[in-house]
Amino acid sequence: MKKTEVAIVGLGTVGSGVARLLLDHGDRTARHAGRTLWLSHVVVRDIAKSRDAQLPEGLLTDDLNRVIKDPNVKVVAQLIGGIEPARSIMLQLLEGGKDIVTANKALLAEHGPELFDRARQLGRSIAFEASVAGGIPIITNISQCLSANQVTSLRGILNGTSNFVVTRMDQDNLPYEKAIARAQQLGFAETDPIHDVDGSDSTQKLAILAHLGFGARIRWNDIPCRGIDTLDKADMNYARQLGYRIKLIAFALYTENGLQLIVTPMLVEIGKPLAEVRENFNAISVMGDAVGPVFFHGQGAGRMPTASAIVADMIDTAVGRTALTFETLELWSDGVPRVEMADPGDLSGQFYLRFNVRDEPGVLGQLAGILGENEISIASVFQHTSDMQNDDIVPVVIMTRATLEKNASNAVIEIEKLSCVVAGTERLRILE
Amino acid sequence: MKKTEVAIVGLGTVGSGVARLLLDHGDRTARHAGRTLWLSHVVVRDIAKSRDAQLPEGLLTDDLNRVIKDPNVKVVAQLIGGIEPARSIMLQLLEGGKDIVTANKALLAEHGPELFDRARQLGRSIAFEASVAGGIPIITNISQCLSANQVTSLRGILNGTSNFVVTRMDQDNLPYEKAIARAQQLGFAETDPIHDVDGSDSTQKLAILAHLGFGARIRWNDIPCRGIDTLDKADMNYARQLGYRIKLIAFALYTENGLQLIVTPMLVEIGKPLAEVRENFNAISVMGDAVGPVFFHGQGAGRMPTASAIVADMIDTAVGRTALTFETLELWSDGVPRVEMADPGDLSGQFYLRFNVRDEPGVLGQLAGILGENEISIASVFQHTSDMQNDDIVPVVIMTRATLEKNASNAVIEIEKLSCVVAGTERLRILE
Repeated sequence: MKKTEVAIVGLGTVGSGVARLLLDHGDRTARHAGRTLWLSHVVVRDIAKSRDAQLPEGLLTDDLNRVIKDPNVKVVAQLIGGIEPARSIMLQLLEGGKDIVTANKALLAEHGPELFDRARQLGRSIAFEASVAGGIPIITNISQCLSANQVTSLRGILNGTSNFVVTRMDQDNLPYEKAIARAQQLGFAETDPIHDVDGSDSTQKLAILAHLGFGARIRWNDIPCRGIDTLDKADMNYARQLGYRIKLIAFALYTENGLQLIVTPMLVEIGKPLAEVRENFNAISVMGDAVGPVFFHGQGAGRMPTASAIVADMIDTAVGRTALTFETLELWSDGVPRVEMADPGDLSGQFYLRFNVRDEPGVLGQLAGILGENEISIASVFQHTSDMQNDDIVPVVIMTRATLEKNASNAVIEIEKLSCVVAGTERLRILE
Repeated sequence: MKKTEVAIVGLGTVGSGVARLLLDHGDRTARHAGRTLWLSHVVVRDIAKSRDAQLPEGLLTDDLNRVIKDPNVKVVAQLIGGIEPARSIMLQLLEGGKDIVTANKALLAEHGPELFDRARQLGRSIAFEASVAGGIPIITNISQCLSANQVTSLRGILNGTSNFVVTRMDQDNLPYEKAIARAQQLGFAETDPIHDVDGSDSTQKLAILAHLGFGARIRWNDIPCRGIDTLDKADMNYARQLGYRIKLIAFALYTENGLQLIVTPMLVEIGKPLAEVRENFNAISVMGDAVGPVFFHGQGAGRMPTASAIVADMIDTAVGRTALTFETLELWSDGVPRVEMADPGDLSGQFYLRFNVRDEPGVLGQLAGILGENEISIASVFQHTSDMQNDDIVPVVIMTRATLEKNASNAVIEIEKLSCVVAGTERLRILE
């Protein structure tokens, strides 16, 4: 049987899962690749560090050059996180003639243009299935399986930590702080989970999907973004009473005025598939103009789900499929973007607005007046019993009909100036 | 830009959708394929027949030889249904040097060994994404994206007609006959829907997935199969009261005693993703030992969803990805099967049993006695008010704990011999 030699750089959680699949299940990869994937080197920073993974002797090295200089190694799983030295290592590997498989979406979102262009110049490929939604093969599905479609929208739950936290806030009635502590205890959140909970991780993933699915050329930090770290569990309860759950949604919509992209917590109607995504799971709903809606659900992170995606990419690369696909992927190339960005203020949709108001006559009239001036129709209004220390302050929840982002934003700014409105307004989009 | 010439054989519902995507959206396919897919011929039986699809002049022909003899045509979408002449045409096309794309699962399930072997001998490929679950790219996902996994189970709703009918029976409280009539009115069932509702269509699809996912070598008509055409809406109601919906499930489970395959209506717990698949949609839950559970949901049939899968396959074939994948697919090759079939009688699971019994003392004791003798523990018992003409006959529903198929089957046979039990017993598996 033919043999393709491969290497792993970085033996953390995912790297040790990849090593396990390659070493313990070589028959499986051989069957699907039509050749043995032979693990020749595993590069780590500190050889002396104790590790879970039992590796055959001689595999482990702290010298990246052993991989770069080994002409037999064709495919390298580059599993170092963060930007540097991950970026330099990837460039060295590409220049050493290696095809790359990676899960590092931060690196791709930050330095994608440089890395993809360099790979193309060198006739090499970068496979990155594991960079978005872990075990859900969304990259292959969008770039290959749905290639006969114009993707018209994407709606994704792309961050398992955030989804775990909002699930616990919703189901166990926990405040954010307690829910994140629970997530940390259970290993679903890092010690410093800021990039997960502030939405930037989801935004990086959305940027990658927007490139692939729409031919967009946006930088991840130009996408409007809000995380879950400012959510109040009271809104979870009010939303549930109205038939919704609050989820962190990565949203892309192809409109005649361009592409709308946003990452933000949204109200999702209970019973819709995205509302029922629990715990640390990920899910993506893709709408294609031919195929209609296609929904994917699975584990978005973790050792073995991510390793599953990495090894599938290593097989694809060894077989030659990745090279064929990579040529036509719409990723940070010099070409003209196929779609322009729309003005975020023009994104239409319904809103959930919650104002904390003084319990006095005429308040609702004032709110309604300002909404009307901003061309916002009210679908329903609920005044809740105060759960605040000051009994004179009550929360008023207003569900609007479809309006523009800028109208909702303007209305809230004006309403917050009213003397009857106190601090702590919430404004959330309702997922259509 | 490079150009790959393609042809369509058969201009029915799917064929006209494929023509539309190729002719109206050539930019899209060119972008993803890195070359133009140029439609050169469309072969039909009767040129004179009026058609929806507007085709450029000169494309339409009733002479298959125009395709076979045209050396520029590389990829042919063979979209004729049924066994013959579809089989002969496919063989002629393969021998003429064409790579094939097809949606004809009946043909593959019946003559797969011959067709796949012939393609391999000739160095050609057959792509068949559209043959299972229409717009859901399950073939690529199992054979490529999840290739680092041992698939341990599959649970699918693979027939849109059946799912439409059970949805209407459940939600609108319709008897089977009225639900199937509604499906026919709305175009979700054919005039003669027997192969959809008797389970054979799902069984053919399950056979294909079992080959790909498990390396099985089973013929579709050796898979135990029951359809939805014998379901009673009363059981829909009893099941719903217990927290379940009845769905036609194509089920595969990898056990230490071999592979279990079955197509049968099962009770699925409300809230689980498969229970919430409505109308004519399809869905598949795949369990992989690395990736965990992955769930796919989308349109399993219809012009454009199926055309989406066909054109994606045409792009993959033109690009060269199909040839690379086809080499290693575990499809009806001469090799030893990687998994043996388990004894269907050994399939473990919980059961829903409904007996129609005379309303007299001691009946429940007799039923429980026979169940106990067959090593079946009772989880719960419900006696329902009779909805039959004879008030003395009442339905008794028993939910069992896990037992073997053969035990449940034997117990039912013995119970039906009791003088207190009248005709019309129902026995359904509960999906684990």
